[in-house]
Amino acid sequence: MDLGMTSKVRPLVEKVRAMVETEIAPLNEEFEAEVGRHPSGDRFKHTERQLEILNGLKDEAKKRGLWNFWLTDSDRGYGLTTVEYAYLAEEMGKVGIAAEVFNCSAPDTGNMEVLERYGSEAHKERWLTRLLEGEIRSAYLMTEPNVASSDATQISLRATRDGDGYVLNGEKWWASGAGDPRCAVYIVMACTDPEAPKHARHSMFVVPADTPGIEVLRPMEVFGSDDAPHGHMHIRMTNVKVPAEDLILGEGRGFEVAQGRLGPGRIHHCMRAIGQAEKALEMLCRRATTRTAFGKKLAELGANYDIIANARMEIEMARLLCLKAAYMMDTEGVRAAQPWISQIKVVAPLTALKVVDEAMQMHGGGGISQDYPLARMWTHIRTLRLADGPDAVHRRQVARAELRKYVNEKV
Amino acid sequence: MDLGMTSKVRPLVEKVRAMVETEIAPLNEEFEAEVGRHPSGDRFKHTERQLEILNGLKDEAKKRGLWNFWLTDSDRGYGLTTVEYAYLAEEMGKVGIAAEVFNCSAPDTGNMEVLERYGSEAHKERWLTRLLEGEIRSAYLMTEPNVASSDATQISLRATRDGDGYVLNGEKWWASGAGDPRCAVYIVMACTDPEAPKHARHSMFVVPADTPGIEVLRPMEVFGSDDAPHGHMHIRMTNVKVPAEDLILGEGRGFEVAQGRLGPGRIHHCMRAIGQAEKALEMLCRRATTRTAFGKKLAELGANYDIIANARMEIEMARLLCLKAAYMMDTEGVRAAQPWISQIKVVAPLTALKVVDEAMQMHGGGGISQDYPLARMWTHIRTLRLADGPDAVHRRQVARAELRKYVNEKV
Amino acid sequence: MDLGMTSKVRPLVEKVRAMVETEIAPLNEEFEAEVGRHPSGDRFKHTERQLEILNGLKDEAKKRGLWNFWLTDSDRGYGLTTVEYAYLAEEMGKVGIAAEVFNCSAPDTGNMEVLERYGSEAHKERWLTRLLEGEIRSAYLMTEPNVASSDATQISLRATRDGDGYVLNGEKWWASGAGDPRCAVYIVMACTDPEAPKHARHSMFVVPADTPGIEVLRPMEVFGSDDAPHGHMHIRMTNVKVPAEDLILGEGRGFEVAQGRLGPGRIHHCMRAIGQAEKALEMLCRRATTRTAFGKKLAELGANYDIIANARMEIEMARLLCLKAAYMMDTEGVRAAQPWISQIKVVAPLTALKVVDEAMQMHGGGGISQDYPLARMWTHIRTLRLADGPDAVHRRQVARAELRKYVNEKV
Amino acid sequence: MDLGMTSKVRPLVEKVRAMVETEIAPLNEEFEAEVGRHPSGDRFKHTERQLEILNGLKDEAKKRGLWNFWLTDSDRGYGLTTVEYAYLAEEMGKVGIAAEVFNCSAPDTGNMEVLERYGSEAHKERWLTRLLEGEIRSAYLMTEPNVASSDATQISLRATRDGDGYVLNGEKWWASGAGDPRCAVYIVMACTDPEAPKHARHSMFVVPADTPGIEVLRPMEVFGSDDAPHGHMHIRMTNVKVPAEDLILGEGRGFEVAQGRLGPGRIHHCMRAIGQAEKALEMLCRRATTRTAFGKKLAELGANYDIIANARMEIEMARLLCLKAAYMMDTEGVRAAQPWISQIKVVAPLTALKVVDEAMQMHGGGGISQDYPLARMWTHIRTLRLADGPDAVHRRQVARAELRKYVNEKV
Repeated sequence: MDLGMTSKVRPLVEKVRAMVETEIAPLNEEFEAEVGRHPSGDRFKHTERQLEILNGLKDEAKKRGLWNFWLTDSDRGYGLTTVEYAYLAEEMGKVGIAAEVFNCSAPDTGNMEVLERYGSEAHKERWLTRLLEGEIRSAYLMTEPNVASSDATQISLRATRDGDGYVLNGEKWWASGAGDPRCAVYIVMACTDPEAPKHARHSMFVVPADTPGIEVLRPMEVFGSDDAPHGHMHIRMTNVKVPAEDLILGEGRGFEVAQGRLGPGRIHHCMRAIGQAEKALEMLCRRATTRTAFGKKLAELGANYDIIANARMEIEMARLLCLKAAYMMDTEGVRAAQPWISQIKVVAPLTALKVVDEAMQMHGGGGISQDYPLARMWTHIRTLRLADGPDAVHRRQVARAELRKYVNEKV
Repeated sequence: MDLGMTSKVRPLVEKVRAMVETEIAPLNEEFEAEVGRHPSGDRFKHTERQLEILNGLKDEAKKRGLWNFWLTDSDRGYGLTTVEYAYLAEEMGKVGIAAEVFNCSAPDTGNMEVLERYGSEAHKERWLTRLLEGEIRSAYLMTEPNVASSDATQISLRATRDGDGYVLNGEKWWASGAGDPRCAVYIVMACTDPEAPKHARHSMFVVPADTPGIEVLRPMEVFGSDDAPHGHMHIRMTNVKVPAEDLILGEGRGFEVAQGRLGPGRIHHCMRAIGQAEKALEMLCRRATTRTAFGKKLAELGANYDIIANARMEIEMARLLCLKAAYMMDTEGVRAAQPWISQIKVVAPLTALKVVDEAMQMHGGGGISQDYPLARMWTHIRTLRLADGPDAVHRRQVARAELRKYVNEKV
Repeated sequence: MDLGMTSKVRPLVEKVRAMVETEIAPLNEEFEAEVGRHPSGDRFKHTERQLEILNGLKDEAKKRGLWNFWLTDSDRGYGLTTVEYAYLAEEMGKVGIAAEVFNCSAPDTGNMEVLERYGSEAHKERWLTRLLEGEIRSAYLMTEPNVASSDATQISLRATRDGDGYVLNGEKWWASGAGDPRCAVYIVMACTDPEAPKHARHSMFVVPADTPGIEVLRPMEVFGSDDAPHGHMHIRMTNVKVPAEDLILGEGRGFEVAQGRLGPGRIHHCMRAIGQAEKALEMLCRRATTRTAFGKKLAELGANYDIIANARMEIEMARLLCLKAAYMMDTEGVRAAQPWISQIKVVAPLTALKVVDEAMQMHGGGGISQDYPLARMWTHIRTLRLADGPDAVHRRQVARAELRKYVNEKV
Repeated sequence: MDLGMTSKVRPLVEKVRAMVETEIAPLNEEFEAEVGRHPSGDRFKHTERQLEILNGLKDEAKKRGLWNFWLTDSDRGYGLTTVEYAYLAEEMGKVGIAAEVFNCSAPDTGNMEVLERYGSEAHKERWLTRLLEGEIRSAYLMTEPNVASSDATQISLRATRDGDGYVLNGEKWWASGAGDPRCAVYIVMACTDPEAPKHARHSMFVVPADTPGIEVLRPMEVFGSDDAPHGHMHIRMTNVKVPAEDLILGEGRGFEVAQGRLGPGRIHHCMRAIGQAEKALEMLCRRATTRTAFGKKLAELGANYDIIANARMEIEMARLLCLKAAYMMDTEGVRAAQPWISQIKVVAPLTALKVVDEAMQMHGGGGISQDYPLARMWTHIRTLRLADGPDAVHRRQVARAELRKYVNEKV
């Protein structure tokens, strides 16, 4: 169980870290500052400067050969293992736009996995190639406002057969990235047969973002922030026509595709969350050793030593657990790795939230403000406790796997 | 130690609760939705509709005799005890603009306390009367970007003697309410003598908001939200002239005023935080009993019973502790009540944050979005862990008081 | 809601505190040291010195008029309220044998309540009078080894009708106090009709401890300690004959009696646990201000200020919650007070365990040894998380009460 | 960073696990039940049956080649790495006497390390050979009643030069294993020069247990249990003469020896604690799936799924952290591994305590009694939070290592 950095990935990690620190981090601040400054006043349009920053960095990343690392089991990429990728993702997690710069950002990676595995040749040509090149972006439309998505069998956006194709009606929300004007295609989960057995009711469709009948109702806000221009959009579909060839894999196989989509990609956000926790602990320590109160360095006041020690221990453990989940995926497959995947999905966001919270507290009023990236990190990580199912659901999975060791019947 | 609702305050509580629920809550949503819609595009201007809402509700409150409850030890108000006020403040905490509707909102209450106790007749006439009437608002300028405000003796905005008056130079931030165009006056802590003994270096000034040399640099954001039009402003003072008569109480007596300012008002935010926790628990329970997943009410899934029970117990205890702190202030005075004041300052925000966090989680994606007031409640309460000193500082106070029981020397 | 010390109880508290500190505490150590030193080698026999200590102290308490305070709603006692009693119980909790010295110890108080409320004249004459005098002791036989007692409807010790009386067969364990040679009578819950509706299956019996067929199998150990000579005994009943007149209240009314038994007495152990937490915090602070390491008082090292502050806040809140539960019992009755009773049953032991654990840690190796009362306090309090139902069951009660506010149907 | 089970250690793990489960576990219960049954009444003498059990099992272990695994960097043993040993230690942790059966128990392993590294030929011949054979046992006398041992520079047992040798005077306590009649030799830390620089004041001696002047004052109790016949003894030395050749390594080099002693052996107890946590979780799950209340399996009640999931996640993380610390020792040396060693010393006992506590709670009254090994496991693990320094001291080490990354000066 080698969880260390291989000699293959080590130079990549160093290159990525260097580029994140010296090229991306400074421009990231400028990128953020530009949000909402498009002459039209439309927050969901990039300014010219934003595009310049993004495209410049992406070109540079490509030039340096730092691109599409996430393709862990494909001959299109580096052929990295998930364990190797984890070390890269951690670095990319440290700065807001870094993952996109290396074409490793959600939800594109998951969507590309779907297209790679289950898409038709036409899908690959029309969408996958351009996604792999970073020319367009994509969104994944799963969760809905009217049902508890923790139980995905309740998903209700309806796709009804209509001649050669399907007609989609219903609403989706939290379509992350759908605010981005470059977002050209959606992967959409829809209910094709409400009377079918629970896990055969749903199907997955590839839907161009500009299909008539698609209406972006509003951006969902995360603690008051709309996350523009990426955005988490609330979308309504009214009689949206989708040709039959854009049904992926077959009717009723939506869950199968969803499982596939969420292969190694399931824990990319955990890897990045660990990077954010590391970044936050670094900020905390720097602050604690430079700021003074009551005549002492903050580090020496109150419980700060214990806070720092606990943060270090928890990050260390979360990283190891994440690497083990990655290792299990690499060696035993996603299905067998499921308990560890569920575990790290609970652990990584909670750990990162706690460390970032302490870092904010150590920064005083500044910590929760726009002056440091901590508040943004916190709200972003807070979404992860819901994004891919609430953590209660993952705990349930872990417990069931544990109890199955002792009982034959289903628990 | 009667911590219960007295027969005097009970009818007031009922009236306030009724007005909050039936009049204020519905308009609060409309008020929030109007933020940033001023024709000028200036987020820190109220729209006409916002002013209509606010003024209409304030007039109604006055008409019903529900006004200025917070004047606990004054003959201008109801003559309520702090314990009695706690029950009212809890109700007012449940809806965003409610405290202002009853003219009981921060930072005005604290500032009015200062003017009432230490202000000159001219101050009372020019500012206090209008504040008591709710005609203007005020801000309190204490914390600064460049020093750890947990140790307030480090405050560095400089007031230098200049002929008849003083000249102020420096920066303040987190001046809550200073974004509001109605905010007419600031109470400002400044350093008058950096060479004096630690607690005699600072003085307190009354400064009209429109004094030349005052520049609002920017709104501080709380987790990405600018809290417009109230705002937490970052302010620069450049050669701001203040006549000597606007120095309060005397040179070097800034800490004395600050202590006085933060009399009973010190825990008003705790009382309101408990109201928010109650509101959040109510929302959590309603959601848990109406939403389903896996064929069951959410209430019956996972650890939800335990989550609900823990929330109830923690709210119950926080409320009792808050009432005890209020009782100690009423009967023993603010100084003797200090350990309990520090205790509730730690406990109330942490308790409320935890309950609101669980309520958000129970609401899924909606919980952290603009669709429910929970995310806004959370970010607001999160500031309280810093607003009046970080909780580590309050814990330090509690521990010192405890240890003093056992040692004669200073710990 | 007066939760304070009344002028009636204050002098009693002072007298009890004084007697605990100056008379009982020193002899308590001697009492403990005598355990197991009976010439026969029988750990469940008091030595002469132990009886001398106990009886001497009890006589003194009687002489000072400090006796049977717990009789809160009876004209036999002081007529104290439960709130008043709470202040006395807290003091009594601080030293091991103190509660018995004032004839206020479990399980006698609960058993006396049963006899007082539901016992026949014969019961009162034969048992109650002597218990009230402190001449004999008693035990309560409820929990059983073979069923989860959290659900008491599963209790299975069988009482079958046999001519004029009943015959009891089965096992009970954790019969606290049944090791004491002075323990003369048991209150026993038995199943009289397994086919009856759930809450009508059980009946309560008064059974003399020397009835033939009763066999003490062994003392249950609490973390390796047998708690001799009090003891928590495992008892077997083989054809134990009980005359019909020793059935209390009537067949099938066992739960009714159990509810009555556990009136105010339900939270006596919580009151005492708070006293133990106070004692532990005092020990912790004394140690922290006298012992040194790394050239500093322990108090100034690491997170110790925070540990002390947290302990103080949690004790303060637990006490207030306990007093509120007592107040609700006094004013609204035990049934209406149920949610608060369940709350404090969760909170008091957990709070006390945490404080005692920190106090042990502050005492280093000594803390967990026989050199300080802390380890004994910890193991004793740990039993409380199970003794009257596991805390999970109490949380369940609290959650159900909370949810009932929002739904009409049973949750 | 291979943290997995190697092909070399896997068959050993399987053999050890099998022997623990099928041979040792059943006899362990019998062994425990014999404690205190020696005809003399002396709890610190093994009964014949106890010796028969122990020696029988040890002979069997030797016969199967399962002996002295802990000699990780020596040619006397298997030449296992610390990572490999961790998997074996985990299995040995699951049953009380198992570690001794394989001659891998504390404090012998640490003492043998000292003798192996720093002992003279005479020491090796007289003591090490017999310890390696399991013929005798040993104790380590470090901690003292009168100073906070968290700061070991305070150790005060005095060794004064006297002619050819030294004379020792003072007290030690928590000399684990010194109760065992087979314990033949002590390693003793003593102060040879109180005026020397802090870390040069102490020296280490090899002292035969039967040296005149050594007096065992009493067994220290752990939560009321004397852990006989192993015992944690309180020892007084009065004019104990030690020849100069029994000074190890040289005067003033006591800390050097102590560091060496606590090489890989420093985390053996962590490895075993993880085994105990696993055992406890297994017991918890078995109970939860077989016991019923309110008509349901316990597993399905309350927060039990979450309790199980959290336990699984925390054990998983603690194990990985332990393996990483072992790996760092193997590859970078004990000094460089120090931060990870400190981390796991905090984490392993806390994790195990939590899991065992939940397992006890799931077992109801039985859980804290002699009927299950859980209570004994809990008290044993609780000592680990103090045994090798209180966890606060380890956290301090972790924090200092973390802060050193950011400051040049000493923190």
